[in-house]
Amino acid sequence: MAAMHPSNSVGIVVPQTARFEEPLTLRSGAVLAGFELVYETYGSLNADRSNAVLICHALSGTHHVAGFHSEQDKKPGWWDNMVGPGKPIDTDKYFVIGVNNLGGCHGSTGPSSPNPRTGKPYGADFPVVTVEDWVLTQSLLADRLGIERFAAVVGGSLGGMQALHWTLAFPERVRHALVIASAPGLTAQNIAFNDVARQAILTDPDFHGGNYYEHGVVPRRGLRLARMLGHITYLSDDVMGSKFGRMLRTEDFGFGYGVEFEIESYLRYQGDKFAESFDANTYLLMTKALDYFDPTHRHKCSLAEALKPATADFLVVSFTTDWRFSPERSREIVQALLDNRRKVSYAEVTSSHGHDAFLMVDEYYHGVVRAYMDNIAVGGQA
Amino acid sequence: MAAMHPSNSVGIVVPQTARFEEPLTLRSGAVLAGFELVYETYGSLNADRSNAVLICHALSGTHHVAGFHSEQDKKPGWWDNMVGPGKPIDTDKYFVIGVNNLGGCHGSTGPSSPNPRTGKPYGADFPVVTVEDWVLTQSLLADRLGIERFAAVVGGSLGGMQALHWTLAFPERVRHALVIASAPGLTAQNIAFNDVARQAILTDPDFHGGNYYEHGVVPRRGLRLARMLGHITYLSDDVMGSKFGRMLRTEDFGFGYGVEFEIESYLRYQGDKFAESFDANTYLLMTKALDYFDPTHRHKCSLAEALKPATADFLVVSFTTDWRFSPERSREIVQALLDNRRKVSYAEVTSSHGHDAFLMVDEYYHGVVRAYMDNIAVGGQA
Repeated sequence: MAAMHPSNSVGIVVPQTARFEEPLTLRSGAVLAGFELVYETYGSLNADRSNAVLICHALSGTHHVAGFHSEQDKKPGWWDNMVGPGKPIDTDKYFVIGVNNLGGCHGSTGPSSPNPRTGKPYGADFPVVTVEDWVLTQSLLADRLGIERFAAVVGGSLGGMQALHWTLAFPERVRHALVIASAPGLTAQNIAFNDVARQAILTDPDFHGGNYYEHGVVPRRGLRLARMLGHITYLSDDVMGSKFGRMLRTEDFGFGYGVEFEIESYLRYQGDKFAESFDANTYLLMTKALDYFDPTHRHKCSLAEALKPATADFLVVSFTTDWRFSPERSREIVQALLDNRRKVSYAEVTSSHGHDAFLMVDEYYHGVVRAYMDNIAVGGQA
Repeated sequence: MAAMHPSNSVGIVVPQTARFEEPLTLRSGAVLAGFELVYETYGSLNADRSNAVLICHALSGTHHVAGFHSEQDKKPGWWDNMVGPGKPIDTDKYFVIGVNNLGGCHGSTGPSSPNPRTGKPYGADFPVVTVEDWVLTQSLLADRLGIERFAAVVGGSLGGMQALHWTLAFPERVRHALVIASAPGLTAQNIAFNDVARQAILTDPDFHGGNYYEHGVVPRRGLRLARMLGHITYLSDDVMGSKFGRMLRTEDFGFGYGVEFEIESYLRYQGDKFAESFDANTYLLMTKALDYFDPTHRHKCSLAEALKPATADFLVVSFTTDWRFSPERSREIVQALLDNRRKVSYAEVTSSHGHDAFLMVDEYYHGVVRAYMDNIAVGGQA
């Protein structure tokens, strides 16, 4: 059967699972008896294991970064435009790893996984995890795969926070960090949006204190609202205006509360789709990990002080209309790294697409990432 | 007993009710058999009835613009800093009227009022009303009060839309319009936020299709979320940052979903308070009136074309950090009026307070309004 997938795709990939039996103490003090991480890899690890790249995902991302899960699969991984043979993160050169974060709902141990203590889903008993915890568990996966040092750790948004934290927690294990559409910490406004999203879920009568699994329901209403709201913050005012504007789906006003404006239809559709497929407890903990991330928190120091441990080289990228993680926030990271005399490249990409721009094809953006990745020296090719 | 209220207050005011028995056909085609408007007045109408000023309220405003309802009342009307003796809208000069809009929940006929057909609250049977309907009903109140022509019609936000529409629907009845922190129509992003708020209310199980009154409940969860979200859009990112930032209420992170950040505490408090006092059906219809407002809609023409009927002079005011109704939107109004060779004053006020700035004391802002209002010639003083 002829392959239906484009030739610059990594093709069909099979997720793998790594099981960790050792108890894991989290940032909160909670202990997980053991856990699993589901991951995918693309390309081949070279002889001296110098070409590994870790992709860290954002709020609703998964381990499925690139390629397809079957011949029939029409939807590639979430960053397929960035990762593949001949793509900016070139799988002909790099051994690329995508991993579903701990607490996720796509195969790694999370709130919907069975709690070994009870045999029932963890639900509310699953601990809140943090960016620190993710980086720690990702390092355990790297150990398992025999990767001592990454050529690069890459992430956008919440993924960028993980890339940044990698350089602080394991400086010797990261040669390059690509921190894209990210921030050194959320603003009050960001936290406020997250809290509204959380309150929507927490106050949904079907939430049942997080133990909805055993009630045979999901807090669909709350999760839907959370996603609708999230979507507004991912898009720029500009792109919403040019894509939807005040366009009506109906001939004229309906004087009721059904769908009327195109933007309403779009948002409700996005919310409905997400509420069918994502776990509400995972959504909650992801937003909390976002809120908590702040390298300056522990020592109440400046960002430059907090970033002192980092020895990696950096590529920082921001997008002009991203009001969720504005260029200003990326510049704070760049400034702090420069204060520490780190080697930093920075690109502020002109884009109308808001925060979502980091997931989209843009010639300049992809060119910058490609040039940066091409320039990294790796040992013998696999 | 000594008055406890400041001497530049209008003092104690008593709301009045005007009952209209004629059937009212609304923009939607729906007909109300009759309706009541509750209103307050401050100052005295002069001999030639040339000093009347109408204040139009925004989403959660009321007829209670200035003064107090009793000696014990500690909280003045919502625009008490603007309206009173010696204040920018000076009640020593003007006869000022505040009116609760049709569909409101502070005394005027609205969804929580008894439906004469059934004796039960209207609920879902209360029709969606529009800015056009409000202006029409306000004109009927003006007739009742013997006011042929207003010295000024004034409003902020959704109130500004009413002031603008007054100049189109009744050009001969408005000498001056003050359109503050407003817009010629919502953007897709504005509509998106409104739709999330509406969906929060509509999908609250306690909403009961709008007929929650007869179930003895209110959709508190939904209304609370709507208000939390609204509040984010009223404040600037800046002011949220400087007021709340990443400040915690707790010693350290709690790794749970209780209140931790100051901003969470603030928003939840605002949401809770509002959900106790406001009617969800009124909230819904107010947001719909916002979404629908668009003077260009009927004739699919330019804004300048749409504003052609206006003969009033205008003061347009915007605030630099207002991202809900940005200065750009006010400038569109100004530009369209200038295209029509109307007399327009425009002030773009530097403020860190976002959309809420229009309700706050700012020397320049109040100075501009004062100067504009002082300059309006009225006949014999009362």
